[in-house]
Amino acid sequence: MKLIEEMEDRKEIIEQRIEEIFEKKSEHPLWDHMAYYPGSGGKKLRPFLAMVSTGAFGKSESKAVPYGLAVELVHNFTLVHDDIMDQDELRRGRATLHSKIGDSDAINAGDGLFALSFNMLSQTDVDGEKIRRLLAELSSSVLKIAEGQEEDMRFEETFEIKEDDFIQMIEKKTGYLFSAATKGGAIIAGSREKEIEKIGEYARKMGIAFQIQDDYLDLVGEKDKIGKDVGSDIMEGKRTLMVIKSLSELPENKKDRLIDILEEDNTQEDIKEAMDLMEDAGAIEYSKNLARTYAEEAKSELDVIPDPNYRNIFEEVVDFVISRET
Amino acid sequence: MKLIEEMEDRKEIIEQRIEEIFEKKSEHPLWDHMAYYPGSGGKKLRPFLAMVSTGAFGKSESKAVPYGLAVELVHNFTLVHDDIMDQDELRRGRATLHSKIGDSDAINAGDGLFALSFNMLSQTDVDGEKIRRLLAELSSSVLKIAEGQEEDMRFEETFEIKEDDFIQMIEKKTGYLFSAATKGGAIIAGSREKEIEKIGEYARKMGIAFQIQDDYLDLVGEKDKIGKDVGSDIMEGKRTLMVIKSLSELPENKKDRLIDILEEDNTQEDIKEAMDLMEDAGAIEYSKNLARTYAEEAKSELDVIPDPNYRNIFEEVVDFVISRET
Repeated sequence: MKLIEEMEDRKEIIEQRIEEIFEKKSEHPLWDHMAYYPGSGGKKLRPFLAMVSTGAFGKSESKAVPYGLAVELVHNFTLVHDDIMDQDELRRGRATLHSKIGDSDAINAGDGLFALSFNMLSQTDVDGEKIRRLLAELSSSVLKIAEGQEEDMRFEETFEIKEDDFIQMIEKKTGYLFSAATKGGAIIAGSREKEIEKIGEYARKMGIAFQIQDDYLDLVGEKDKIGKDVGSDIMEGKRTLMVIKSLSELPENKKDRLIDILEEDNTQEDIKEAMDLMEDAGAIEYSKNLARTYAEEAKSELDVIPDPNYRNIFEEVVDFVISRET
Repeated sequence: MKLIEEMEDRKEIIEQRIEEIFEKKSEHPLWDHMAYYPGSGGKKLRPFLAMVSTGAFGKSESKAVPYGLAVELVHNFTLVHDDIMDQDELRRGRATLHSKIGDSDAINAGDGLFALSFNMLSQTDVDGEKIRRLLAELSSSVLKIAEGQEEDMRFEETFEIKEDDFIQMIEKKTGYLFSAATKGGAIIAGSREKEIEKIGEYARKMGIAFQIQDDYLDLVGEKDKIGKDVGSDIMEGKRTLMVIKSLSELPENKKDRLIDILEEDNTQEDIKEAMDLMEDAGAIEYSKNLARTYAEEAKSELDVIPDPNYRNIFEEVVDFVISRET
């Protein structure tokens, strides 16, 4: 079976559960607000990872559904709050939640999703000690996300960002939640410590590759596929790996010009010029290659998966992550 | 021992633990932001209730400390986010977090406190099935808080509020977290279902009395004790029980005048006039009496506590709640 079909199968299960959860509660406006992002598509990659991880370590994937939902709801809560903090207008081609209902209601809806996530976790059909372990894992990953978000916001105030600090930031914002998904799946399956750690490392590294690819897509993707304007990161002056690399490679005058474009209101021509500068600096190629390196490192953890079919799924996920167009 | 001393004893333990938690982490700015409310005083009533509840049902109070901290951190996370949503400037006599560091950093710090809370919960020294139960309890109470906050924000758009709907809103915003504190304490002690439910009902009703008293204090309290301007609720047009009762009791012309004062910019004289209108309507007395009724109902649940010393503490907490000046 192709990966895309494997993903669709699990996505259907997760989307149906999401529908059931919010259907029952729709009499309260809070729940309508909460349903807006979880019910609006998305790849449902994190529950997929949790389910496949439980399956790979020999238990029924269905056992991982409530925990997978918990991870997905955490992801959605962070999207709601991040969109407020960044004052973004579009998400997956639709208006962001706060731009529809206002900042206050959106803060509150995000809090509701966060609470619902941990409520789902408590319903996982495993023994209580595993609940404790899942809770420690998921709550720690949210602390990392908040740290990463803080670092990301600090980066917006400077152009002096070290590559290592940038990688640490995206590891926190993206890597640890991916790793909570796969580790959780392994914990649910009752795996040994070494297996839990390795499948976590796999996802953490894959998450870093995922985020680098995300920033890359913003520059080279197609608007209809990525659900936002191409080059929107440049327009917003976002510090991506490509920007950081360009600033360290370009001669002084070109570096100043790139900073100008990032800091000022800019035209489509300016954005094109910024892309050319990044191209000249070799930063786009560099970024693509670094994503590939993390992807390969992620794959190297997979010797811990005994079943070749499941190992194959995990490998294909990595290939998908660095070659995806959406 | 007097209640105030009983409370001080537990407060010291909780404050020391809070200090330890944030001391270790202070290298990251997120953690400095997170520490601002938990480290700034407050009565620490919720952890007190959790500890006393565990003690009352026959186990060492110290077992309830991590869970009590979890409840306290949830409380603080809701304060941080509520202050943003309400755009309040002062809390406990100091600048609110968002007015110090900006809305975005404060949203993120609130999220961090929320995550830390559930991380603390996972460290409670009880068996895993109790962890599951505590998790379900605490996460449900946060969902109620978010629903209540949503209702509260809707109320700001109208003066047609039924008293029952108002009581339900403060039950959600305040009652359920108090009840999560005492129920959690009883769960940690291994109490029977009926005991858990009754001590939960005690706290839920006491929480309603607490919130009615809070709004009452805003009108009749002293600025230095309540940490904000007296009458600030009127200035902000807040719909309190006293406002709702007044609007249902006053003749049309006085009702319109009260609405005018609540809706417009108002002087100290206007605020005094609004207080007089509420007094005329009998709304201040009514509010005081309703708080007493909930307080008595709370006490009636306490026959479930075998130890007279602990029963006495719980009774004194109720008396404190409806007679407090801070």
